[in-house]
Amino acid sequence: MLRIHGIPRSRAFRCIWAAEEAGLPYEVVPIGFAPGFKLERAVAINPNNKIPALEDGDLVLFESLAINLHIAKKAGAPLMPAGDDASRVLQWTLWTATEAEPHVMRWSYNAYLKPEAERVAAEAAAGKEALDARLAVLEKELAQRPFLVGEGFTIADLNLASVLYGSWMNGYDYGPFPKVKAWLDACLTRPAALRARRQREG
Amino acid sequence: MLRIHGIPRSRAFRCIWAAEEAGLPYEVVPIGFAPGFKLERAVAINPNNKIPALEDGDLVLFESLAINLHIAKKAGAPLMPAGDDASRVLQWTLWTATEAEPHVMRWSYNAYLKPEAERVAAEAAAGKEALDARLAVLEKELAQRPFLVGEGFTIADLNLASVLYGSWMNGYDYGPFPKVKAWLDACLTRPAALRARRQREG
Repeated sequence: MLRIHGIPRSRAFRCIWAAEEAGLPYEVVPIGFAPGFKLERAVAINPNNKIPALEDGDLVLFESLAINLHIAKKAGAPLMPAGDDASRVLQWTLWTATEAEPHVMRWSYNAYLKPEAERVAAEAAAGKEALDARLAVLEKELAQRPFLVGEGFTIADLNLASVLYGSWMNGYDYGPFPKVKAWLDACLTRPAALRARRQREG
Repeated sequence: MLRIHGIPRSRAFRCIWAAEEAGLPYEVVPIGFAPGFKLERAVAINPNNKIPALEDGDLVLFESLAINLHIAKKAGAPLMPAGDDASRVLQWTLWTATEAEPHVMRWSYNAYLKPEAERVAAEAAAGKEALDARLAVLEKELAQRPFLVGEGFTIADLNLASVLYGSWMNGYDYGPFPKVKAWLDACLTRPAALRARRQREG
């Protein structure tokens, strides 16, 4: 039994979705946020005191995208492909962490997450400009194949789509990137994604 | 033959070090920076137009830390361990990308990389404060074992140490974190690290 520490309205959502795609049994230990994005209590098993964290028997992991790679590896192909495609999955997962997440979070905090009085329009604009530049790269990639790696959905798609999910839900303009939008729509309406989203969106 | 696109005075250094640790033959395609950190020419094989990129036969990869995971996988254990330790390697590699690199780069740009007139002392201080908080976590981890994963050096150590390397060379105060400092000293003076550093430090 996978134990996912966190709440669906946090990055733990990503891991809940991965567990749903993998078809592995899991439970959620609901550690969440007090106002101001502070954890309401310590995540005792995670030295970083952040959510999510995963317990899988004796193994304890932090970093949501790494947790998802672990879950996908347990499930095997097609969620985690073999050979060179496994390296491409790692590439896109690192790209998600370095090229997508910082910019989408900069936009998100200043477009909808923070209390309205604390939002800075120039910060939202800077995040959007940087993210748009990355989405232009992604648009060209998705013109060549329907998913990030090979012909089918993998954990690479899940990792990137789950990082973009909040922006997709909250009015980010994906109009200039039709292939990205179609890919996001497809990923985020998969049956497993819908099961995870129901826990979050209520 | 691995082809590493980039120059040793860039993030390609990380991949050169990994190839040296793996004992795999490689060549460097020397694409570098013009003033202002702009690439002097396009990296035709990388849609992001960034260095490094790797060619390994028909496989083309970007993202330096993912390239290193690929190189380590080719080499196998001990550089890339198996089982749960492989997941721990991924965890620490993602931690490097999300918790260490943004802060160390914020400090680095404003402490030594940018022309002196463009450096902002408050930015360097903010980067140092954030990185110190992460080094405090790392200090506790390295009190429990000599390397990040298991008892020996793995690609997880290489990935994190190579990201911290520039700060270690350029006066970052690791004094408050003696276990981190001893670990960094050990990693960055390994024979393979010294062979890679010679290409960079001249």
